[in-house]
Amino acid sequence: MTAPPDPLLQDLHDPLTRIRDAFVAQDGLIYLCGNSLGQLPVATRGRMADAVEAEWGRSLVRGWNSHDWIGLPHRVGDAIAGLVGAAPGEVIVADSTSANLFKLAVAAMQARPDRKVVLSEPGDFPTDLYMLEGAIRTLGGDRRLVLRAPEEIEAALTEEVAVLVLCHVHYKTAALRDMARLTKAAHAVGALVIWDLSHSAGVVEVDLNGCDADMAVGCGYKYLNGGPGAPGFLFVAARHQASLVSPLSGWMGHAAPFTFVDDYQPAPGVARFACGTPPILSLIALEAGVALSAAAGAPAIAAKARALGDLFIARVGDRAGDALTLISPADGAARGGHVAFRHPDAYAIVQALIARGVVGDFRDPDVMRFGLSPLPLSFAEVARAADLLVEVVATRAYDDPAYKVRAKVT
Amino acid sequence: MTAPPDPLLQDLHDPLTRIRDAFVAQDGLIYLCGNSLGQLPVATRGRMADAVEAEWGRSLVRGWNSHDWIGLPHRVGDAIAGLVGAAPGEVIVADSTSANLFKLAVAAMQARPDRKVVLSEPGDFPTDLYMLEGAIRTLGGDRRLVLRAPEEIEAALTEEVAVLVLCHVHYKTAALRDMARLTKAAHAVGALVIWDLSHSAGVVEVDLNGCDADMAVGCGYKYLNGGPGAPGFLFVAARHQASLVSPLSGWMGHAAPFTFVDDYQPAPGVARFACGTPPILSLIALEAGVALSAAAGAPAIAAKARALGDLFIARVGDRAGDALTLISPADGAARGGHVAFRHPDAYAIVQALIARGVVGDFRDPDVMRFGLSPLPLSFAEVARAADLLVEVVATRAYDDPAYKVRAKVT
Repeated sequence: MTAPPDPLLQDLHDPLTRIRDAFVAQDGLIYLCGNSLGQLPVATRGRMADAVEAEWGRSLVRGWNSHDWIGLPHRVGDAIAGLVGAAPGEVIVADSTSANLFKLAVAAMQARPDRKVVLSEPGDFPTDLYMLEGAIRTLGGDRRLVLRAPEEIEAALTEEVAVLVLCHVHYKTAALRDMARLTKAAHAVGALVIWDLSHSAGVVEVDLNGCDADMAVGCGYKYLNGGPGAPGFLFVAARHQASLVSPLSGWMGHAAPFTFVDDYQPAPGVARFACGTPPILSLIALEAGVALSAAAGAPAIAAKARALGDLFIARVGDRAGDALTLISPADGAARGGHVAFRHPDAYAIVQALIARGVVGDFRDPDVMRFGLSPLPLSFAEVARAADLLVEVVATRAYDDPAYKVRAKVT
Repeated sequence: MTAPPDPLLQDLHDPLTRIRDAFVAQDGLIYLCGNSLGQLPVATRGRMADAVEAEWGRSLVRGWNSHDWIGLPHRVGDAIAGLVGAAPGEVIVADSTSANLFKLAVAAMQARPDRKVVLSEPGDFPTDLYMLEGAIRTLGGDRRLVLRAPEEIEAALTEEVAVLVLCHVHYKTAALRDMARLTKAAHAVGALVIWDLSHSAGVVEVDLNGCDADMAVGCGYKYLNGGPGAPGFLFVAARHQASLVSPLSGWMGHAAPFTFVDDYQPAPGVARFACGTPPILSLIALEAGVALSAAAGAPAIAAKARALGDLFIARVGDRAGDALTLISPADGAARGGHVAFRHPDAYAIVQALIARGVVGDFRDPDVMRFGLSPLPLSFAEVARAADLLVEVVATRAYDDPAYKVRAKVT
């Protein structure tokens, strides 16, 4: 067994170490929930003050043109495209991840009207399944949702499948699905694929066009650091854009929104998947967050994220005892940006760690997740968090009754 | 003919005059586009700085509980409910007005499965028709959209109609529809009604429950002063909440979103019409805007809005010549919060007024609209704007070629 890497040396050689200063410092806190809500970039503070005061306050309705609010969904979409292997004009920011999945799922089912199956996996982030249920219930007919465990997905890909919908990285285990292989397998039977990049955009390498991906959705408030509830994004490969139509055919997706005609005419390109007026203040915060990932560059981000995960896993090792079980892939090539463990006392352990300045999160009934955001975190912090986890578990510090009082967890 | 009222006396007796100071002053500008984008409240500046710095920056993901972000859609919804004659628990803030209309239109059609007609009027705000087209296309079957002029709506209400969808105030003419009468007529044939309150909430009296209304949607960025692209809201009468299901069945509308189960179970109450994670920063700005309307109170707001419109119309009178035609109802009881005129040179007139410090807006091909937001505007400002309109038209000041260069208008 090789010795775990030395985190101080890793920080010394980290090409992204300078970008840590671009985030508001968390005094004494090691924040490992960037997979749930990314940290506040320093620049966002000033950017938001300006958006409120100068753009809204002084430009008022003229801001749609003078500050190009109208172009924001495309501008931020293009910046995200550069992080996920898409081309400019293939990504737009709009609505929420959930709503975007509804749009694409309906469009995909309508593009394959003779196929009645939407295929997905059970136990991944639940809103995706809820939205698919809603899309199927709305389109009606004898369509149905079929759920198969990851290892059975390929066998379930038949000519009945209209669309396969998968999370690229599992929200709980961080298991990374093989986008290239599964997309190819779906295409072989004539099915489309929608990838949910919520837990992969801005943290692992995503190569949508390299994988010949059809469609994708993703989240702005996790690794893209766009702020609480930041709008979602969606990708439609250029080759599909002309033939797919959004069920949420709002004026922002109209070919000429400001002619105010009664008939809907979808805009060319990905713009047709916009719907209503976008929340500009939240979009501006997202733009500032995405700018940091764009500055860092996707390859450097993915390399550091993987190294942080490897360090965390190696540093915990078997020092905490058998009750702590790694449920994330140990192989960095198969893992997303967080590391998850199972333990019967996971809730209390997460509380004990919070009391020690390490913020991770808990997922019922016995999972703890540690998000290792590559931009704001140092290797030293991640090593320290691993050591504290080991200490809390090995010494049963979590047995303190104060750590067992359940609060509402979001 | 009675003399027009004296605006200085009106300001003296205006019970809302103090609330004008709650908006950031527009130096030398008379802003008459509050029907498009409301002005920035003073308190919003500090509230947003705090939301960014303290709530997101320091509380991070804990903000969902510690700052009750999770409760925001309901809290702001309840505040809006008080402005539109709804009860607490009947209004939620979510998504955009467009997306909300889709949800309610689909739910209404599914509640009346044997009826195939969605009835609306042509030429009103177009995204509503686009969304209805999308909802019908998605639900399929032999459903169809039937458009009838306002005076023909009642005759078109047959037992084929599943749902009537109308804007309460027309976006262009400001004509106010009779909510009580049309709702009653629809109910008489067993149809449901969805009201779009985008141009009425926060400016005219809206009495949803007094009119026995079924459902409504509305906009946060106009008279509610919620900021550019502020989220929309929706109303579902308590008696309908248990039987209607949203097609956009996202996790925020789940009965237990944080148990992360695979099956969708709609939340009780209006919460089931929430979808994905809401844009918190934009929602916080909306909360600050709505608070001002709530403080002013709906009756005082409606009374002042009507008086401002009456003043503007009386002050313009026939002083500008025949080419300027009032297309809004002269009767304040039949009019929303803006006043619209038609003129062949409307575009240039709007530009000439902007050069003179009066910001109104232009709608193709020949309409100009003047939004008379009752909270930030004084009677003196509105009188001054009317005088400048008269002057620009009567002296043909708009003939300056500089005013005829078309820029993109949003």
